[in-house]
Amino acid sequence: MTETEAIITTAAERYRNWGKWGAEDQLGTLNYITAEKIAKATGLVKQGKVFSLALPLDNNGPQNGSMNRFNPVHAMLVDGGDWAAGARPFANGIGGADDLITMPLQCATHWDALSHIFDHGKMWNGYSAEKVTSSGAACNGIERTADKLVSRGVLLDIARFKGVEVLADGYAISEQDLLGCIEAQGETSHAGMGDIVLLRTGQLGRARSTGWGTYAGGDAPGLSFWTLDWIYRAQIAAIASDTWGVEVRPNEFAGAFQPFHQVALPNTGLTLGEMFVLDALAADCASDGTYEFLLVAAPLPFTGAVGAPVNPQAIK
Amino acid sequence: MTETEAIITTAAERYRNWGKWGAEDQLGTLNYITAEKIAKATGLVKQGKVFSLALPLDNNGPQNGSMNRFNPVHAMLVDGGDWAAGARPFANGIGGADDLITMPLQCATHWDALSHIFDHGKMWNGYSAEKVTSSGAACNGIERTADKLVSRGVLLDIARFKGVEVLADGYAISEQDLLGCIEAQGETSHAGMGDIVLLRTGQLGRARSTGWGTYAGGDAPGLSFWTLDWIYRAQIAAIASDTWGVEVRPNEFAGAFQPFHQVALPNTGLTLGEMFVLDALAADCASDGTYEFLLVAAPLPFTGAVGAPVNPQAIK
Amino acid sequence: MTETEAIITTAAERYRNWGKWGAEDQLGTLNYITAEKIAKATGLVKQGKVFSLALPLDNNGPQNGSMNRFNPVHAMLVDGGDWAAGARPFANGIGGADDLITMPLQCATHWDALSHIFDHGKMWNGYSAEKVTSSGAACNGIERTADKLVSRGVLLDIARFKGVEVLADGYAISEQDLLGCIEAQGETSHAGMGDIVLLRTGQLGRARSTGWGTYAGGDAPGLSFWTLDWIYRAQIAAIASDTWGVEVRPNEFAGAFQPFHQVALPNTGLTLGEMFVLDALAADCASDGTYEFLLVAAPLPFTGAVGAPVNPQAIK
Amino acid sequence: MTETEAIITTAAERYRNWGKWGAEDQLGTLNYITAEKIAKATGLVKQGKVFSLALPLDNNGPQNGSMNRFNPVHAMLVDGGDWAAGARPFANGIGGADDLITMPLQCATHWDALSHIFDHGKMWNGYSAEKVTSSGAACNGIERTADKLVSRGVLLDIARFKGVEVLADGYAISEQDLLGCIEAQGETSHAGMGDIVLLRTGQLGRARSTGWGTYAGGDAPGLSFWTLDWIYRAQIAAIASDTWGVEVRPNEFAGAFQPFHQVALPNTGLTLGEMFVLDALAADCASDGTYEFLLVAAPLPFTGAVGAPVNPQAIK
Repeated sequence: MTETEAIITTAAERYRNWGKWGAEDQLGTLNYITAEKIAKATGLVKQGKVFSLALPLDNNGPQNGSMNRFNPVHAMLVDGGDWAAGARPFANGIGGADDLITMPLQCATHWDALSHIFDHGKMWNGYSAEKVTSSGAACNGIERTADKLVSRGVLLDIARFKGVEVLADGYAISEQDLLGCIEAQGETSHAGMGDIVLLRTGQLGRARSTGWGTYAGGDAPGLSFWTLDWIYRAQIAAIASDTWGVEVRPNEFAGAFQPFHQVALPNTGLTLGEMFVLDALAADCASDGTYEFLLVAAPLPFTGAVGAPVNPQAIK
Repeated sequence: MTETEAIITTAAERYRNWGKWGAEDQLGTLNYITAEKIAKATGLVKQGKVFSLALPLDNNGPQNGSMNRFNPVHAMLVDGGDWAAGARPFANGIGGADDLITMPLQCATHWDALSHIFDHGKMWNGYSAEKVTSSGAACNGIERTADKLVSRGVLLDIARFKGVEVLADGYAISEQDLLGCIEAQGETSHAGMGDIVLLRTGQLGRARSTGWGTYAGGDAPGLSFWTLDWIYRAQIAAIASDTWGVEVRPNEFAGAFQPFHQVALPNTGLTLGEMFVLDALAADCASDGTYEFLLVAAPLPFTGAVGAPVNPQAIK
Repeated sequence: MTETEAIITTAAERYRNWGKWGAEDQLGTLNYITAEKIAKATGLVKQGKVFSLALPLDNNGPQNGSMNRFNPVHAMLVDGGDWAAGARPFANGIGGADDLITMPLQCATHWDALSHIFDHGKMWNGYSAEKVTSSGAACNGIERTADKLVSRGVLLDIARFKGVEVLADGYAISEQDLLGCIEAQGETSHAGMGDIVLLRTGQLGRARSTGWGTYAGGDAPGLSFWTLDWIYRAQIAAIASDTWGVEVRPNEFAGAFQPFHQVALPNTGLTLGEMFVLDALAADCASDGTYEFLLVAAPLPFTGAVGAPVNPQAIK
Repeated sequence: MTETEAIITTAAERYRNWGKWGAEDQLGTLNYITAEKIAKATGLVKQGKVFSLALPLDNNGPQNGSMNRFNPVHAMLVDGGDWAAGARPFANGIGGADDLITMPLQCATHWDALSHIFDHGKMWNGYSAEKVTSSGAACNGIERTADKLVSRGVLLDIARFKGVEVLADGYAISEQDLLGCIEAQGETSHAGMGDIVLLRTGQLGRARSTGWGTYAGGDAPGLSFWTLDWIYRAQIAAIASDTWGVEVRPNEFAGAFQPFHQVALPNTGLTLGEMFVLDALAADCASDGTYEFLLVAAPLPFTGAVGAPVNPQAIK
C-alpha cells in the first residue's frame, strides 16, 4: 500500500457511516433530512423568487470527450418541416413535434448516485461494486433519491469571501475557508445537520463567458480532502459545487484520482452535485445578505442509474 | 372546413391568449404564476412530506411504439464488471461507473412545451410552426420554463369523487365534474389564477398493476373538450393528469385528433403535463382532507425541446 | 445437472474447436475461409447481378421490445426545414442535412459476434465471459471479422424444398432436410469447407407482408440442435437464416434457451447471421438453378461489439 | 450574386446531370455501373486478398465536436458482468451479451447520400430540399443505394505519385495530378465509366499515428474544384478519399463552403465517400503494380438517411 492509499484508507475508516441507518440503507447522509427539516426549509421562502441552478442542456455544454462523455444530443422525430412538407398530415389543421435525447447522465448539472464510485470494490454501505452491471446499479441507484433531495440549501460563496471573481485552478478550499465564509456571510449561512451546501468557486461562470476549455475533467478549485472531517462532523446531507467535480484538481496527493470522492461517496454516503449554476443566486444572496433558501433538487429517477441530471430550484 | 374543424376553430379563437403578455411571450399561462403566488404556496407546507410524482425511468415503462416512442434505454459506459475485470484500473483502489440514456423526451412523466402542438401552422403566440426545425424549437422551447413551474398545486381526484377506482376509458370529464369535485373535496381544492391542477383518473395506477397494454396512445378517460371554457376563465397556469394525454380518448368529435391539445397549447398557451403519478398523493389528500400543496415541477431545460421529463415534487 | 444440460454439455465437448487455430484465435470457423476460397468464389459471378440481403433500417422493423431491443431510431441533426427557415445559413446557396442513429446492434440484419453467447462462463476459444464488460468485448469482438466475411455463399431454400411458402413455426430443420435440399437443388448447392450457408425458411417474407407479430423473439422454424454434427463435419464457415435466431423455436429441449447457440458460438466458433432477406435471391436461384454466389458480408467494425449490422451482398 | 457564387453556379449548370436517367432517378452517377461492369470487376480478383477500408468504430475516432458530430458511443445492455453477478440467469449454463450504438451516420468511414447537400434549395435531380424533414429524406436517401455500390475500384495514390508521405493540408489535387498519377501507375489505373475512384492523400494514416487534431472538419489536401470537369467527362460512378471531406480545405474560393460538394452531389449526382482507410491497400498496390480491384462497398440501408457508415471491401 502506497502512502497515498494509506491516507485514503485511514480517512475512509474514520468517516465511514456504514450501518448507521441499517444494513439495507441506500441513502446515506440524505437520511439527515427529516420531515421537520423540510417543513422548516419551506418557511425560509419570503419573496417567491425562483432560481434554476441547471445548465441549459444542449450541444454548447462543457463536455469535450473527457471520460468518454459528450454533450446532450437533441434530435427531432417530427417537426415543423414535416408539417410544412405535409409529411405527417393530421385532421383539422393540427400538427406537432416530437423529440429525442441521447446523453451521458453526468454530462451537465447532476447528482452523483452513491453507486457512482467504489472504494476497493465496495459501494456505500458495503455493497459490492459487482452489483453495478450492464443492467444498472442493483443497489444505491439514483432512483432511491426520487423524493429525497428537498431541504434547506445554504450557499457558501467562497470566491466572494476570498475577494476574487474566480478561485484559482488547483486552489484547495480548506475547513478554515468554509468556517470563515460562514462567519463572514452571517447567521443565515450556518450549515448543519441535513443541510444541502452549495459551494461557489466562480469557475462555471468564467467558463461560460470565456469558453469551456478543460472545464470538464481538467484543473479546478475545489474542496480539500481534509474538509471531509467538517462535513462528517456537521452532518451535511449533500454538497454541490459549480465545478466539474466538487474536489480540487489536480488532486492533493501524488498518484491519487479523486480521493475525496473515494471517501465521501462509498464511505460517508455523501451525495455530490456537480456543475450547479450559482452566479445569479449568489448575486441575490450577496444583495440581501440571506444565504439560505428552500432547495428542491430531485433528480430524474432513472432506475439503476449511477447519476442523474437535475434542474435544482432554489426558492427564496 | 368540416364541422369538426369549425368547432375547433371557434374554440381556438375564443380561448386564444395571443398577445396577452406581449408579442414576444413564450410562457403563456405560466405568466399567471406570480412571486406572491409562489411565496404563498410554500406556506401550505406543514409536515414536510414529499411526494415524487414521476414514473421510474426504465424499460418497464408505458411505451409500446405508438407515435414512434420507446421506453428509456439505459446503458453503462463503465461499471462494476470493468472493475472486477481490471479493465479500468485506477490508483489506490478507487473505481467507478458511468452511464448513458437515450429516450424520447415525452416517453414518461413530462411537460409538453408550447412548441409541441401546432394549430394550422402556428404555435403559441402566433409563432410559425416552421420555427421548429431539426435544430429544435427556436421559440416556445421547454427551456423557457426552467424556473417557471413552481406554484400551488391542487389535486382534483375525479375517480374518487365519482366513487370508482378508475374512470372508464372514453369517459369525458366535464366542467360539472370539475366543479363538483372541488365542491366535494372542500375549500383546499379551490382552483384559480396561477394554480397547477393535477387531475387523477386512476388509469395510471391500474396500468402499473395490471400491465401497460395500450396506456400510451390508446383509449383513456380525460378532459372533455368543453372544459376549455372553465380552464380559460379560471386562469389555470398548467394542468397535468395521470393519463397519457390529459384529454379523453377516443376524442369527442369524428375525425379529430387531440382537439383539446390543438386549442390549449397553441391558442390558450396552457402547459400540459402527462403521466403524473398521483395515487400516493391522492391517498394522503383523502386521509387529511387537504388537496393543496407546494408543487415544484421544473423540467430538465433541454434547449429547443418540445417537451421534457420532470420529477415533480408535491410537498405538504 | 439436468438431462437437458447434460445433452448440451456432451454436444459442446464433441463440437468444440478450441485451440484448433491457436490459443489466441478469435475467428473460429471463419478460419476455414482461405484466400484461394475467396478467389474461386469471385469466379462464380457471371451476370453481375447484386442482391442486398439487408432489411431496411427504420422504425418499421421487427423489434417489439423482446430482449430489450427496439427498432433503429433515426433522427435529424440538420435538415431541409432548417434550410427553409434560414436556421443554418451558409454562403453561396449551399445547404445540407446531417443525421444520427440509435440502435441495438442486433435489431435487424446482423452477424452475432463470437462474444455474443457464453457457455458456462466461457466464450469462444475458452475466453472468460468476464472479458465482456461495459467497455465492450476485449476478445471475440465483431471488429475481428472486419475483412473475414467474404466467401462462396450457398443458398439452401428449405421452404421450397419442402414445397411450402413458409416452414411452420416450431419446425426443426434436420440434417436429412439439409442433405435432401442440397441433393434436390443440384450440384451448385454442395456446401463444404469455408462456405457461408444461407438458410431460407420463408418466415421473414411472410412477416414483412402480414405484420411482424412475434417474429423477433417468438416461435420460428429453424435448425435442429442435431444439425450441429453436419455443420461441424462439413466445416461450414458461417450460417445465416431469414429468421430471428437461426435455430428452431420453441427450442427442442424442456427448459433450454437457445441450445444450438450455446454450442455453436462459444464451442464450435461458428459465426451466425440473422434476419437475412433471402426471397429475391431465392427466386433468382430457383429460376436459373444456380444456388452458389459470391457473398460479401462484412459487418460494420464496432470495436468490442458483440454483434453488428451488415448489408450482405450476394453477387451472381 | 458574389463572384464565388457565380463560379459555383456556372459549374453547377455545366456539370448537372438532372434528368439524364429520368425525372424519378435517385441514384445519379451510380447509374454508370452496369451488370456487365460488375461481372468484369469480379474478374479482377486473382489472389483472394481482402482489404477492409473502414475505420474501427469506437470512441477513439476522429470526431471532435465539429459539425455537432461525435464518435460512436457503444454501450452494453447485458454483458459478462451480469453473468458473473447472476443478474440474468438462464438455464443450463447459457449466458449472453447485447449492445447498443449511438452515432452520427457520417462520423467515420461513410458514403454521403445524394440528399446530404443542397444547392439553392435543390437536391439531386431537382428534388426540393424541403423533402428532407425530421422524418428523413423522402428522396435520395442512402437506402436507394443498398445494392448499388459494387464495381471496379481504382486507387489513385496521389501522395505516392507526388513522392511524399502525406500531401500538405491545403494542397489542391488538380486534373493534371489525376492524369499524371494514372499515367505513372500504369494501365491498371485507367479510370472511366462506372468506376469507383479511391483517392489517397496519406492524411488519414498520419492522423491515426500522430493524433486526430482537426482531421474532422479542419484543413486537408483534397480535390480541386476544377477536377469536376474530368470527373464529369470520365463518367466516374463515385469517389472516396482518406480525408474528412474529399475536397481541398481551406476551400479555393473566398467565402465558399465546400463548393465541390455543392456541385458534385446535388448537380452531378456523384456519390462521395469519406474517411476511407487506404494505406494497406496502397502498399499492396505499390508492391504488385496493380491498382484495380473489386470494390464492394454497400452502406447500411438506413431509410431516409442522408449518409451511412460502410465497411468497404477491396478484393484483389
